[in-house]
Amino acid sequence: MKQIPIFVIAAIMAVSVIGAMTVSAGGADDESSPIFGLKIPPRYRDWRLISVAHEEGKLNDLRAILGNDIAIKAYREGKLPFPDGAIIAALHYGHVPSEENNNVFGRSQSFVAGPPTNVQFMVKDSKKYATTGGWGFAHFNKDGKPGDEASMKTCFPCHNQIKARDLVFTRYAP
Amino acid sequence: MKQIPIFVIAAIMAVSVIGAMTVSAGGADDESSPIFGLKIPPRYRDWRLISVAHEEGKLNDLRAILGNDIAIKAYREGKLPFPDGAIIAALHYGHVPSEENNNVFGRSQSFVAGPPTNVQFMVKDSKKYATTGGWGFAHFNKDGKPGDEASMKTCFPCHNQIKARDLVFTRYAP
Repeated sequence: MKQIPIFVIAAIMAVSVIGAMTVSAGGADDESSPIFGLKIPPRYRDWRLISVAHEEGKLNDLRAILGNDIAIKAYREGKLPFPDGAIIAALHYGHVPSEENNNVFGRSQSFVAGPPTNVQFMVKDSKKYATTGGWGFAHFNKDGKPGDEASMKTCFPCHNQIKARDLVFTRYAP
Repeated sequence: MKQIPIFVIAAIMAVSVIGAMTVSAGGADDESSPIFGLKIPPRYRDWRLISVAHEEGKLNDLRAILGNDIAIKAYREGKLPFPDGAIIAALHYGHVPSEENNNVFGRSQSFVAGPPTNVQFMVKDSKKYATTGGWGFAHFNKDGKPGDEASMKTCFPCHNQIKARDLVFTRYAP
């Protein structure tokens, strides 16, 4: 019977993990978001869906909210506060009418994700971010540039108004 | 040095795969969708995001479009037609104003995913579904019941109008 030494398996697993951590589907950037010192998490575009949303007004966007494994597990178990390591990603796209769909449907009703406008992250680290409810915040424009310090100062006071859900607005969509 | 027999590894892998195929995060149902004989694919709620959308009018919904690994790979490689085995899931939710968010923002602009309305699937099998462009279609109401035969007959003629993209309306959101 053929046998595989355990160190070979360990090596394969290690390579897989390292590979997964360095390749970014969403396009990693070297610049950190001010105040919280966060970079774009690798492979966030592969994370699972938490929910979808739509903001009218100046934002005028469609939103996909994704979570890493720790965040998804906490959501599904209804566990609050979120454990350290949880990361929530908000992918924002233009809210754009689809002429293509409307032509097929025979009426104007269809809106699709236009070009990305920005992507935002909340990272739970209860010690590192103790003064902001245990969350670090990050914002990156469509060109990968982080939001400036002034704008990053607005994250916590706004999210802090939803204390009952550990500062997280988005509810899980089944 | 410790060694693990290859049949043990094979057995562990087999159990993992079987486990993954029988547990449904989205709630599997025993009933098949008419005409195409499709059931709710196991674990589709864990699939990766293709894009988001919003339909006004009677539909009045927010949509998350997810893909299994084969579909996501084809999208990212810009490969058409989709290969056999590709499955696209459309998760539809009510387009519901969020009073909670609006109160924090100080204006009425925020819409979130309300209760699920239905979930639809497109399954690529170029032989089995040769008469409908290689795609099988499925629709399940929020209670898990499949759409009736009459409604299922409307899927192909509508999707067939977007032949240039292999009958798939949704474009990939980066």
